This record gives sequence, structure tokens and C-alpha cells, in this order.
Amino acid sequence: MVDEFGLIQRLCRPLANSSAPVDLGPGDDAALVSVPPGQQLVITTDSLNAGVHFFADGDPSAIGHKSLAVSLSDLAAMGATPRWITLNLSLPKSADFIPAAWIDDFAVGLAGLADQYAVALVGGDLTSGPLAVTVTALGLLPADSAVRRDTARPGDLIAVSGTLGDAAAALQLSQTGQAVPPALLARLLRPQPRVALGQALRAIATSMIDISDGLLADLGHILRASNCGANIAAGSLPLSTTLREQPEFDWRWPLAGGDDYELCFTLAPAQRSRLELLAEKLDIRLSIIGEIVPGSGIRCSAPDGDVMPLESTGWKHF
Amino acid sequence: MVDEFGLIQRLCRPLANSSAPVDLGPGDDAALVSVPPGQQLVITTDSLNAGVHFFADGDPSAIGHKSLAVSLSDLAAMGATPRWITLNLSLPKSADFIPAAWIDDFAVGLAGLADQYAVALVGGDLTSGPLAVTVTALGLLPADSAVRRDTARPGDLIAVSGTLGDAAAALQLSQTGQAVPPALLARLLRPQPRVALGQALRAIATSMIDISDGLLADLGHILRASNCGANIAAGSLPLSTTLREQPEFDWRWPLAGGDDYELCFTLAPAQRSRLELLAEKLDIRLSIIGEIVPGSGIRCSAPDGDVMPLESTGWKHF
Repeated sequence: MVDEFGLIQRLCRPLANSSAPVDLGPGDDAALVSVPPGQQLVITTDSLNAGVHFFADGDPSAIGHKSLAVSLSDLAAMGATPRWITLNLSLPKSADFIPAAWIDDFAVGLAGLADQYAVALVGGDLTSGPLAVTVTALGLLPADSAVRRDTARPGDLIAVSGTLGDAAAALQLSQTGQAVPPALLARLLRPQPRVALGQALRAIATSMIDISDGLLADLGHILRASNCGANIAAGSLPLSTTLREQPEFDWRWPLAGGDDYELCFTLAPAQRSRLELLAEKLDIRLSIIGEIVPGSGIRCSAPDGDVMPLESTGWKHF
Repeated sequence: MVDEFGLIQRLCRPLANSSAPVDLGPGDDAALVSVPPGQQLVITTDSLNAGVHFFADGDPSAIGHKSLAVSLSDLAAMGATPRWITLNLSLPKSADFIPAAWIDDFAVGLAGLADQYAVALVGGDLTSGPLAVTVTALGLLPADSAVRRDTARPGDLIAVSGTLGDAAAALQLSQTGQAVPPALLARLLRPQPRVALGQALRAIATSMIDISDGLLADLGHILRASNCGANIAAGSLPLSTTLREQPEFDWRWPLAGGDDYELCFTLAPAQRSRLELLAEKLDIRLSIIGEIVPGSGIRCSAPDGDVMPLESTGWKHF
């Protein structure tokens, strides 16, 4: 075990500004918080392992940001407001790893995002072991207002936020030793959870998920849970200018690439104008990419109008 | 990533009997639960890493049991009732590790304890990486009834549940290649969180902590948080018959050995008779081992009446 108490203090210091109400914070056997009447508690957890989910020698600040972002993205996909997190850090004991320096940088990245959403760190566990981070995030929702995966209906439109494929392109370019445009790298290293959008979509969306495994996989989760299929148009997928300009542009990036942390959701066609107003109000690109149909699976039309062979994207039909 | 969805199903199956109410369980971006009015939410999290907290080739069922037990013990130390957990499992990708077989056994151990306390698994994350387990446990408490660390007062009696040192003795004996009596080994591998006792002590204890790092360290946390000191008597420490009979019996086991997961708590002297009634009702040994005094630090009298040099236990004065 590293010097646990000193490191915990270093970690908590930059996080002390967050403003979510806490009845009893870190330092006892457990933390205490209060859930206001009429609210449901929303719970999600994600682990990131060095060498699997991030580079072991990666910028600790970016790792801190991302380890919180992925959990906030899950809360956003339910329409919830983030409130509290616990943090489990496993840190190596080795000569070339300086826990205090790593934690200081990690905390800055985590605290930046925690402050932005007034999320309070209420507990955690610091252990020695292979470098790994687990964040468990708790949020609140007005009772029975969650936007689930299993409630899409044939006839619904399918929409996504932002642009798709930037993170996957950044990962592939960096893994093949190519220069990575900063706009793409930022999407991979510092994804922005769509918290405000998720909350606003409670009034509009019939189903919702965040895109962490890739559009086809995550839309597939909605379809499987809702017992329906989807027709989408590759030509409608929102692509960033930087992505379009990549000489080796690959449709697998926006279709099957993970790590975008955009929201994919469905809505009744009658809600289309409300969606356009919302996009304007939040200044977020919201794109209709297809519609829900009876049946199962995803049928994707290529920009030339042909059916795209999705198997070539690595996507497995269920 | 291992075949995540298949493994999650294998994991959830033995856990499906638990009876804590859940509004939306695993399978969406996040889970939904309701906290009844007048209750506080209690939050704790613990990580166990292979090679640090358990043997990598250890019985997965015992690892499953212990990974939940340590978190339930933290909830018990607040006086809380366990309700929901999330589970993060990191599993190696290697030829000699069979994730499905490991998970099946792990789930049996976890589910046994989860069933006992009607704890529901509401979410989790399965990743590939070094073998590691994180359990985040959520419990409930009547508002403002938590038993904290920072509320011991000079004059209070100090008490502990059960017997101390068994787990530490088992660890040392096994690490030095000696035969480990089953009664001691069970304490190390399958600790029993004192959930019912913790709840009952809400009406009696002035402060409480669970003994995970050893009596001196954990009582030390109470003293530091409460700004006071303690006099304890080694001769009053509750020792199991098996422990007493060890030819190499070492006072460091009950004083500084961790992993017992008993409760250490303080109470006003006037509550002594209620404590005796409680011990009888719950059939749990509850022993007075000393008293809270003004000042700081722990003074321990040896069985012969002399002051015990605690530094020899490896315990550091604060």
C-alpha cells in the first residue's frame, strides 16, 4: 500500500470545491448523502485499466478526465443529473512510478470535470497494484423520468449528438504511428459527456444510450432491448470536418468506432421541431440518421444508396 | 475484453434471488433505485487486487465472499442496512485463466453473502486486465442515525465484537508454510460482516469503526477523529481458543493484525447493561477492552500490568 492517507489528501484537495450537497464526506467507514423526495437514484460504474483503456504512460490529467467522463456519459444517457462519485485507484509500486506526482495530475483532470458538473467525491479506495481506475457515479432523476433503452418504437426517428468517429480515428492514427490532428485527439482523450443534453432529452426522447462501443453496437443495444430494427443512412452520419478530410477516411470510424460518448436516441417524428429548437438552444449538433422499423438488426444505406455490408465494419449482427 | 455479455449473465444468475427493491437493474446505461423518505444513503467502496489482497490462485468463491464482505463491514460500521451493490471485475486474458469457470465460482461466493443480506447487484463493469475486484456498496440509514468515528468522548468504554487476531494469525501461518487451523483460515477467507450488530449499536454506541487494518490502527482512527486518547488492556482482548493455543502466539495478531472485520465501538458506561443484553440477544461476544481518555494515542497495559511497548507491534503513534 502506498502512503494512503497522504495520497488521499492530495487527491481530495483539488476536488474540495464541488458543490453537490454531502451529509458526510470521505474519512469515515462510509459516506452519507440525502436523496430528495420524488427523486430516483441513478447508479453506474466504469473501470479503466492501463494498457487496455488508456496508455500506462498517458497524461494522468487526461486519464482523470476520461475516467469521470465515461461514467457521467452513462448518467447523461438516462437523463440524470450527476451528484456524487466514489473513486478506486490502484497504483503500481515501482521505481519509475511516482504516485504523488501521478495523483496530483490525475486529480486536476478529474476535478476539472467534477467542478463543471458540481459532482462531489464522497469516498474511494487507494490500493497498490496495476494502474487502474474505477469511478462509480450516482445521479438523480425525477421519479419515473429516466430514458431507457427498451422503449424505442417503430416509426421513431433515430438521432445522434455531435459528430461520430473522431475518437476511433484518433486511436487508429496514433496506433499506426501517424500524426493525429488535435481536434481528433481531444475527442479520444477528453470526451465531453452530454449531461445537459441528456437531461433536456427526457422531454423528447423515447429511448437513449451513449455511444461508447460504437454506433452500430450501441444502437444495437436499443434495438435488442426494444425488440425492433433500424434503417440508417451512412450519408446522414454527422462527421467532423477534420474527420472527412482524413486521406484514409474509413466508414468504420463513425459506424463501429467507440469512445465518442455522444448520445444516440429515438424520438417520435412529431418531436422533430422540438429537437431542432433544442439543438439551437444548447448549441449542439443533433442529426437524424434513420428510423426505427419492425423486425431486428440494422440496415445501413451507403451514400450512393446501396445497402452497406455492415459485416465489413467488424459489426456482428445479433 | 472477454465475452462480456455472456459472462455478465453467468454472474447475475446466482444473484437473481436477492430481494432488495430495484426500479431498474443491470442492462441499461445505469440502474435506478429509490431511497425511502427519511432515509440517508450510505456509500462505501473497496478494491481487492490479486497478489495484494488475495492470492491470484485462491478459491474464487472465497474471493467473491470477501469482496462483498469488506464493503458490507463498512456499512455495518455506520449502522446501515445494505441494499445495493455494483461490481467491477477485471479478468486476465491468459491461457491458464478460464473466465467463465472463475466467474461461476466467484458468483457463488458473492451470491451467498448477497442473499443473506438481501443485497441486489444493480450494475457493474467487466474488463480485461489484471485480476481485480471492486465492490461499491450502498445502504440505508434512518436520517441522522449514523454512528461515526468522530464522536467518542472521554469516559466512554471501548468495546469490540467477536475475537481478534484470527485472520492475521492465519495469514502469517500460511505465509510461513505452516498448517493453518480451519477456524483461523475461515476468518481470513470468509469474514462475516457484523451487519445486524452494527444496526443494533445505533442505539448504544457513541462511535464505531470496523477493524480492517488492525485494532490499534482502527481505534487510532476513532481517537484522531474524536480528539482523544485510549487506555486499553491486552488481557481484555477477546481471543479465540484456537488463537490462544497457537504455540507461537503473538500479541501483534490481535493488536495490529488486520482483516478481522469485527466492530470496534465506544459507549457511555451507563449503557453497559444494554450491551450485555445485546450480546445475549445476537449471540455475539462483546468485550469491553478499555476506555476513552483525554489526550491522544493508545496506552496498552500488558496482562502482567506493565505498559506494553506498542512500537514493537509495528504500530505507529500519530
